[in-house]
Amino acid sequence: MKQTIDLNCDLGESFGAWTLGQDGQIISCISSTSIACGFHAGDPQIMRRTIALARQHGVAVGAHPGLPDLQGFGRRELVMSADEVYALVLYQIGALAAFARAAGGRLGHVKPHGALYNMAARDGRLAAAVAAATRDFDPQLVLFGLANSRLIEAGREHSLRVANEVFADRSYEADGSLTPRGERDAVLADPDEAAQRVIGMVQEGRVRSRQGTWVPLLVDTICLHGDRPDAALFAQAVRQGLDAAGISVRAPLADAAGA
Amino acid sequence: MKQTIDLNCDLGESFGAWTLGQDGQIISCISSTSIACGFHAGDPQIMRRTIALARQHGVAVGAHPGLPDLQGFGRRELVMSADEVYALVLYQIGALAAFARAAGGRLGHVKPHGALYNMAARDGRLAAAVAAATRDFDPQLVLFGLANSRLIEAGREHSLRVANEVFADRSYEADGSLTPRGERDAVLADPDEAAQRVIGMVQEGRVRSRQGTWVPLLVDTICLHGDRPDAALFAQAVRQGLDAAGISVRAPLADAAGA
Amino acid sequence: MKQTIDLNCDLGESFGAWTLGQDGQIISCISSTSIACGFHAGDPQIMRRTIALARQHGVAVGAHPGLPDLQGFGRRELVMSADEVYALVLYQIGALAAFARAAGGRLGHVKPHGALYNMAARDGRLAAAVAAATRDFDPQLVLFGLANSRLIEAGREHSLRVANEVFADRSYEADGSLTPRGERDAVLADPDEAAQRVIGMVQEGRVRSRQGTWVPLLVDTICLHGDRPDAALFAQAVRQGLDAAGISVRAPLADAAGA
Amino acid sequence: MKQTIDLNCDLGESFGAWTLGQDGQIISCISSTSIACGFHAGDPQIMRRTIALARQHGVAVGAHPGLPDLQGFGRRELVMSADEVYALVLYQIGALAAFARAAGGRLGHVKPHGALYNMAARDGRLAAAVAAATRDFDPQLVLFGLANSRLIEAGREHSLRVANEVFADRSYEADGSLTPRGERDAVLADPDEAAQRVIGMVQEGRVRSRQGTWVPLLVDTICLHGDRPDAALFAQAVRQGLDAAGISVRAPLADAAGA
Repeated sequence: MKQTIDLNCDLGESFGAWTLGQDGQIISCISSTSIACGFHAGDPQIMRRTIALARQHGVAVGAHPGLPDLQGFGRRELVMSADEVYALVLYQIGALAAFARAAGGRLGHVKPHGALYNMAARDGRLAAAVAAATRDFDPQLVLFGLANSRLIEAGREHSLRVANEVFADRSYEADGSLTPRGERDAVLADPDEAAQRVIGMVQEGRVRSRQGTWVPLLVDTICLHGDRPDAALFAQAVRQGLDAAGISVRAPLADAAGA
Repeated sequence: MKQTIDLNCDLGESFGAWTLGQDGQIISCISSTSIACGFHAGDPQIMRRTIALARQHGVAVGAHPGLPDLQGFGRRELVMSADEVYALVLYQIGALAAFARAAGGRLGHVKPHGALYNMAARDGRLAAAVAAATRDFDPQLVLFGLANSRLIEAGREHSLRVANEVFADRSYEADGSLTPRGERDAVLADPDEAAQRVIGMVQEGRVRSRQGTWVPLLVDTICLHGDRPDAALFAQAVRQGLDAAGISVRAPLADAAGA
Repeated sequence: MKQTIDLNCDLGESFGAWTLGQDGQIISCISSTSIACGFHAGDPQIMRRTIALARQHGVAVGAHPGLPDLQGFGRRELVMSADEVYALVLYQIGALAAFARAAGGRLGHVKPHGALYNMAARDGRLAAAVAAATRDFDPQLVLFGLANSRLIEAGREHSLRVANEVFADRSYEADGSLTPRGERDAVLADPDEAAQRVIGMVQEGRVRSRQGTWVPLLVDTICLHGDRPDAALFAQAVRQGLDAAGISVRAPLADAAGA
Repeated sequence: MKQTIDLNCDLGESFGAWTLGQDGQIISCISSTSIACGFHAGDPQIMRRTIALARQHGVAVGAHPGLPDLQGFGRRELVMSADEVYALVLYQIGALAAFARAAGGRLGHVKPHGALYNMAARDGRLAAAVAAATRDFDPQLVLFGLANSRLIEAGREHSLRVANEVFADRSYEADGSLTPRGERDAVLADPDEAAQRVIGMVQEGRVRSRQGTWVPLLVDTICLHGDRPDAALFAQAVRQGLDAAGISVRAPLADAAGA
């Protein structure tokens, strides 16, 4: 029975004059954050401010590289070669790492965003490109990916430490995949229900699927979505649930991350 | 009488399907190169390839951050705050450094591009922002700037090593400034004339102005322009001239740069 | 004593996943709107939706072309040639006009945004470029500009109908210019005070400056800012004030605009 | 036996400081051109210049809308909804049409570029979105699409005149599809061979496939690729071949196009 877990949220998703998310409230609930790197969201000033916010709260920081699609928020799949993905990811890791370094810290992990996350979860060649870019930048980085996915495999094959990610507010299918967003009940509305489910995932390593069956899941980190209207309340409910259940919330490799 | 000098050229200025410059020919003439970082030119794949080209030829690499203006090639001045410039420069240094690092090397210098170069040459606050971003990333980096400019001052104030830059093919005014591009004779057409003038600049620390007077110049690095139609021939002429004059061409801090 | 006035607001300033402004509430208070065209804000889908919203409320639509600076929201001045400004403005007018046309309407006016508005207000060559692009697209368009500015002059010189614009929430200096945003009291906080001042501007053609003197002003259209936190309340207060004072709110050339 | 045909080429594919193509030489060989609209290539000034070039040579102009992917030159497929495609295409048609209008002309056709062309060729919903945007802008426009494709069908269903397009330098498979670029012999190297094949396609309405079988083809317009290294020579060879065969080269609906 697992007693510690990482609780992560994607932050720094504003851009220029446009604000998105409730970063200032969510930051106190989590142990690690993946920060947008300017391709699907974020800009240099926002990256700098988000790094500062994370350091102030002792939250581990990771790069959240996305597709070059600001208008689509990196959520539209783009057909790219493995070479393109490698360079795209390496570029963004480096850009974010510069802000961490200038602030006296360093990156702890890498987690692809949106469509790139999904593409790397199912396509072995793209997964390998993401893993290679991560390792070539810093073999100490932890690679976050969808639990049991090709990206996790690729991370292991590139000798990286990996973190299997599950989602606090997404429904699962009997085969372990996420219920597509278009489907009914794809997203859990109730924060308390989500909190209880998360505790079960951590303690039992399994989740009940939409079809009612139990699905085994490796669980190293839990993702909170920052773009729910009730994102801050939701984050608080999950965090309080974990605390009450005696589960310690901390970043993977918290000693190494040095945030 | 100076016996060694750095000969630099801006490379990696292609973008996507568009090719610019004669990188493959110029690389063998120079000792250091400033590589575009994706804002005014360059993209992640081109950055990767240009780093590889430089390493193959033992040429020191630096970041060439520019304004976020792809259409204007970073040559149109944009009114920015010092905070914006700091973040913009730090972002781009980090992005390029990632490719150097993944290739087993590291950056040797930073040189702002185009309008940012000019803005930082004359505006002390922006110069300080560029210097701070450079130092905060890595205090070992050499800051390239227009000889005798505010940027050079700011570099010294931030405890950075600096390289006063002169231009092989640009005419100088009596006050030491570059003849504006719109003026007659602003650009030297003849490679051999340029080569002779460069030798004089290095050996005597002065240049004859368009008005005929001698202007004293600090000269640590000589810039070749990569976007002349005859850029490769021009580079060869200047390099051969320096070699024939017994002036050794090598990167500043060549030992440290480790390219 | 003037009895009709145009009340305008810039709308459609969201982008992709990012929402800005209170378009749905403000639209019912105004007679014309300037819609962002994708360079500083807005994207094709938002332009389409904003055109539909305006038509549904019988509000006249105009193009709101801006500088190509999404991160800076078009508020940072960029040094451009008159040819560049001409092409930039014509492009954006055409793009927005396509949505008006597809919806069965047409554009009524053009008003540059942000830094481009300011540049065209004081620089005669850029003002002429904006006016020429507007006229070359459609000589029936009304050109909106800062009251008494170079842009208004240029519009007249290009045989365009012009609308002198004043600001409901901005303070004026004794020389008729806007109090710079950095200054104290640059922006009026109180909606009712603004409403009373607007009525005075319309009825008396003058405004009391920050220094206490009266400044004569040509007033054809009043701008409401859509990015105040209280933008919707502010719009309602101004509109109700005008209605109560018996001043009719309608678009310039309302018959022609055909929105 | 057909005696007239349209010969088209995509032009205006430069961007900012980067030049691509041999527009000045190809323009004299063709009867219509599709001009990039700023999303995958082209910028406002290049669009203006390309319109001027086409008008000077009496060449009909069309919009060449592409995906928002400058780095990928619009050649990487991006998953988009039909609503997104509709707005994207309408925006770009409007932008280009503004330059045609300002120059005293008008658009004659619309032809999607690259990945958007391919997506619209095989996906009926996206094809309908392209056709609807074209019709909503101007029902007189001719819609260019891959011969016999979904896009041609959608054009007819939206009451548009259509032009079945074939390629002068691409090999065909037995099923009428283009040989994928990755395959051997996908692109014809020899201009004279291409010219002879084009004449056959026009006169006989069929082409010999890579497998040796004859494939029937509707042929309304022939596309020349502007990005071959020998593009100008190739264009001249095809044009001279058509002239020599007594086939008249002119734009579809040449009277209406009014370029």
